[in-house]
Amino acid sequence: MTKLRPQFVLFGDSITQLSFENGGWGAALAALYSRQADVILRGYRGYNTSWALLILDKIFPELSSPPDVVTVFFGANDAALPVPDGKHFHVPLPQYKANLHQIVSHIKSNSETTVVVLITPPPLDDEAWIEFRRANYNKQPEALPDRINEVTKLYAQACKEVAKEACVPVIDLWSVFQQTQNWRQAYLIDGLHLSVGGNRIVFNELVNVLNDILFLRADKLPMDFPPFGDIDPKNPGVAFQSWENNSNLAKVNILDW
Amino acid sequence: MTKLRPQFVLFGDSITQLSFENGGWGAALAALYSRQADVILRGYRGYNTSWALLILDKIFPELSSPPDVVTVFFGANDAALPVPDGKHFHVPLPQYKANLHQIVSHIKSNSETTVVVLITPPPLDDEAWIEFRRANYNKQPEALPDRINEVTKLYAQACKEVAKEACVPVIDLWSVFQQTQNWRQAYLIDGLHLSVGGNRIVFNELVNVLNDILFLRADKLPMDFPPFGDIDPKNPGVAFQSWENNSNLAKVNILDW
Repeated sequence: MTKLRPQFVLFGDSITQLSFENGGWGAALAALYSRQADVILRGYRGYNTSWALLILDKIFPELSSPPDVVTVFFGANDAALPVPDGKHFHVPLPQYKANLHQIVSHIKSNSETTVVVLITPPPLDDEAWIEFRRANYNKQPEALPDRINEVTKLYAQACKEVAKEACVPVIDLWSVFQQTQNWRQAYLIDGLHLSVGGNRIVFNELVNVLNDILFLRADKLPMDFPPFGDIDPKNPGVAFQSWENNSNLAKVNILDW
Repeated sequence: MTKLRPQFVLFGDSITQLSFENGGWGAALAALYSRQADVILRGYRGYNTSWALLILDKIFPELSSPPDVVTVFFGANDAALPVPDGKHFHVPLPQYKANLHQIVSHIKSNSETTVVVLITPPPLDDEAWIEFRRANYNKQPEALPDRINEVTKLYAQACKEVAKEACVPVIDLWSVFQQTQNWRQAYLIDGLHLSVGGNRIVFNELVNVLNDILFLRADKLPMDFPPFGDIDPKNPGVAFQSWENNSNLAKVNILDW
């Protein structure tokens, strides 16, 4: 496939991997940009930022056509508590911060114009998550909890700091969710993963960020190929030729900003 | 982006363009293959096969990496009745058939291994579609109807004939929908476009086709990068190296069949 459209890559853990499920924020983004951008899913269930580093140059190789937007949405696993059995997702806080910096700078090093949007982990509903793990993984009490919201908060803060230091936009999901009183029931399904309502919040926040960047607005990006209303059935070639001429100009603009 | 995974391209009209809306068949496919394939949306609202021909070599250029699966889902607009004002979508039946053949052979000419799946237009609910056009476009009675199911039936049959002649799989949506007694209410929203239930049927039928092709089964295609359960947190590189070795073998298999 030749690159016909801008590419938006969603890079993250399970909350990204699940984003094309019913009501998911990734699918909603693909629907909004259905004629304008390709939304590429790179979500890896259970991954933390240290493992993300191991696949970074394969997903974003140097010589390839760089994506136009990348969401980087890690931290829910990094924030897991360290456990003695070695089967853990935990990444120490300073390491998480350094890893995020490395992810952002790697993506930016391929293309300065790539817009990187950091997303903090959502807040954890401690009790619901314990209940989910007890019911689904038959965990013994000593293995519970494996995550607590007070720790996730620190990772969300670190993510915001990285965004500030690297001068990239950030969606502070940890705070946004908690602005709604019943966020636990409204936005989460198991204490950690997103409900349809939670997905809608991520989508809305991401659209807000993209709307701030003029050329990425869904109502500004050029469509690929003319809308059917512009096509004269008796002489359809005219609309396509005209689209091609304008589209080339639009592409130059996108590359230049 | 380097091609890390097989690519599934959804090529069609509005029923494809809308397939990432809530409950859409495209989003469901992307969710099912979230770690295995990229689902690329190429849906063009209002397009018929004659206009599709005008963009064919841009979407599927000769020298580019060919997709692994392409759904070709046109006919709902081709089957529109010819109207005197010239603003119509109508494509004569023999031309529709010739156009579909050209689309299939163009895609196949780039890569013999690309799996092309034809999908017939869904049946039309004549009365609901008239009502929708009256309510939304304020059409005068003489402009109604612009489509009737008895004509759409002929286009669905032609689509099946093309599939047979070109030896590619086909989903006979026109017939499948009508196997359910209340198909009009269950599968359509405005007489023409798909409800969540209709989207689910397209998804199920497509998964059935893909399941018949061993290497495209969601439970057979290799994941990109190891599942987190295979990763030893104390030595994560081992799992990634092992994945890379196996993955290269898997890729050769995909290219060879």
